[in-house]
Amino acid sequence: MVAGVTIDTDLVERHLFELARNGAYGETGVWRTAYSQEWMAAQDQITSWCWEAGLHPRRDAVGNVWGVLEGTESGPSIVSGSHIDSQRPGGRYDGALGVVGALIAMRALKAEFGPPRRTLEMLSMCEEEASRFPAANFWGSRAITGQTRPEETEAVRGYEGESIGDAMRSAGLDPSTISEARRDDIDSFIELHIEQGPILEHATLPVGIVTGITGIRHSIVDVHGRADHAGAAPMALRRDPMPVVAEMVSGVIAAAREMGAPAVTTVGRLVVEPNLPSVVPERVTLTIDSRHPEAGEREELYARQNAVIREAATTWGLDVASRVVVDQRPCPCDQELVRLIQQTANELDIASMFMHSGAGHDSQVMAQIAKVAMIFVRSKEGRSRTPAKFTSVEDAVIGIRLLAEVLCELAY
Amino acid sequence: MVAGVTIDTDLVERHLFELARNGAYGETGVWRTAYSQEWMAAQDQITSWCWEAGLHPRRDAVGNVWGVLEGTESGPSIVSGSHIDSQRPGGRYDGALGVVGALIAMRALKAEFGPPRRTLEMLSMCEEEASRFPAANFWGSRAITGQTRPEETEAVRGYEGESIGDAMRSAGLDPSTISEARRDDIDSFIELHIEQGPILEHATLPVGIVTGITGIRHSIVDVHGRADHAGAAPMALRRDPMPVVAEMVSGVIAAAREMGAPAVTTVGRLVVEPNLPSVVPERVTLTIDSRHPEAGEREELYARQNAVIREAATTWGLDVASRVVVDQRPCPCDQELVRLIQQTANELDIASMFMHSGAGHDSQVMAQIAKVAMIFVRSKEGRSRTPAKFTSVEDAVIGIRLLAEVLCELAY
Repeated sequence: MVAGVTIDTDLVERHLFELARNGAYGETGVWRTAYSQEWMAAQDQITSWCWEAGLHPRRDAVGNVWGVLEGTESGPSIVSGSHIDSQRPGGRYDGALGVVGALIAMRALKAEFGPPRRTLEMLSMCEEEASRFPAANFWGSRAITGQTRPEETEAVRGYEGESIGDAMRSAGLDPSTISEARRDDIDSFIELHIEQGPILEHATLPVGIVTGITGIRHSIVDVHGRADHAGAAPMALRRDPMPVVAEMVSGVIAAAREMGAPAVTTVGRLVVEPNLPSVVPERVTLTIDSRHPEAGEREELYARQNAVIREAATTWGLDVASRVVVDQRPCPCDQELVRLIQQTANELDIASMFMHSGAGHDSQVMAQIAKVAMIFVRSKEGRSRTPAKFTSVEDAVIGIRLLAEVLCELAY
Repeated sequence: MVAGVTIDTDLVERHLFELARNGAYGETGVWRTAYSQEWMAAQDQITSWCWEAGLHPRRDAVGNVWGVLEGTESGPSIVSGSHIDSQRPGGRYDGALGVVGALIAMRALKAEFGPPRRTLEMLSMCEEEASRFPAANFWGSRAITGQTRPEETEAVRGYEGESIGDAMRSAGLDPSTISEARRDDIDSFIELHIEQGPILEHATLPVGIVTGITGIRHSIVDVHGRADHAGAAPMALRRDPMPVVAEMVSGVIAAAREMGAPAVTTVGRLVVEPNLPSVVPERVTLTIDSRHPEAGEREELYARQNAVIREAATTWGLDVASRVVVDQRPCPCDQELVRLIQQTANELDIASMFMHSGAGHDSQVMAQIAKVAMIFVRSKEGRSRTPAKFTSVEDAVIGIRLLAEVLCELAY
């Protein structure tokens, strides 16, 4: 039975709007990279709202902000939250909705039902987007799960060359204490997040219940040919990487299309050398981003795509080197939590569907130490990573209501 | 009957070697852009060699250097030469061989046979490579044929932003006098040039007799899709330009391969926006360089390629814009000159073949006012536009001997 938690729509709107002032970009965007001034202001804003909500705030060694609602019983915590950093620029809901949503859900629970049986914690994580430090790789959740390595504070560098350790120091943090951010007392982590895709909008549903986070592999394929004069070199004597690459692009994308949803494959990056109109390229390098949430089918997809690469290389007889630079296994969500979320949505008459997450999220890292689940809220036009990314406040409130009821079920 | 002109191999080697000192780059390369210090030194070197050879030198309004061997009869001149500027970097033979070759051929003719019946002129043209001024477009030969426009001296800009007029001034030239460079008294122009391709080497022949210069079209094709998240956007809902472009690249290159030599097509330049591994591209722009020396087959090639572009656009339903940015018609060489060169090569026992030029040359511009012909000399490894570009002195001398005998036939 649902408890009937009331979510204050005005407060949701106000918090999302005010948070977006920190690093406001254009009409609707946000530019708020990890450890920047705007980021510090945003985390301080969250901290201030925690006090206001009756959650006891604290900042951990890596800059994650926690808001604790102490339980009457001892035992591991129920945690909910997301990240506070953005793409460059990103939308005002990405990450922020999960932070504001957890904060307002816990505030409402406390206001209506007092202290919980089990400890509830709101979490505003410091870094997820890799938008300032490309190799940060879930810096906030990796610190919580004890996966950062001491040498990374120097080795992980920003686009301007600065180390993530220096950036932490400029935000008043001591990188030598990162290991203190580690937690081993979290029972469950539930992340509310915008979908960042068009599936819910197409299904005209406000909410998606995430069954798992997709597996992601990035391969960099390098096709080495020979630069030649575009006029003087006959076709038969060329070693042109371009048609080889075209065959690879067509083939790897066709493989995902033929396998069907939820398989996806993107060739988003392609670098041609020397990239001159009248010179047969010497070399073309492409990145293949290929995703599938099911372990077995994922391997099948990669096997088909590797066959495409090999076949193109053999047909054209060029030197082809391929290396895997990102390989994240699929992360299934906790089945009991998924069931609880579905049941709660039904009881609240919230129309929903099961879906997987096609993007990576902190939840997949938190899964190392806790049961995890995610609730998706519909995005408009399915746009992602752009300031245009937009979710209606109505849908946001539906997501937060669902989250609050689930937290209530788990903690009260 | 050939006259038996003697070409001094040592002098050819010495001249090519000494000329390459002006803008020497690495072991074998040259970096000598139009109107640069190195270029000025090179033209002065040519001028000095003209005096030495008994050719009366003069520099025209655009910086072309002419070396005149006055004929005993009046009438239009027989001219031979090429360009003195280089790619960045280029090889020491590109252009230089045609200048040094004409100079040494005329020097030998004068030494052995005295003044010619018809006036002979050596020509060292100022600019052909467009390596400093991308829009210069055969600046030297356009000035000679009266095709430069006054506004170009300000409008044609270098990669550093400087106008070609300022560059001329810095080389001691007055851009307001360019029209004085115009000639209307040239009967024939014969250009000796390295092949820049692998055809002669594959045929194990030192010399190619050029029947025509290829037609060149550059089309810029812009495929506009929609940026999306590489994970969250299902394949069926994407507007991904990348597979469309892959189909175009495969198709236009296949069209040239299927039509067979001498058709060639190159996609040398491809720009992806935003070019990030995990973002479906918003837009991909490619340049198609497509060449054929026969007017009719050229149109057929372009028609097939346009069909490929249209079909890919229709199949995928994306916005595709295509525009032609370069369109140079094929330029057939003068048939009588071609026949004379072939006959002379046969009499000299120089093994040769007919071929077309796959690259553009000053000769196609000079064809506006004169009969033109080209003699190609074998390139090693068919490399072009690189310092590695190399031709043996033996082959160079064979080419110069053939040129000298042809000039002798025409002028004595």
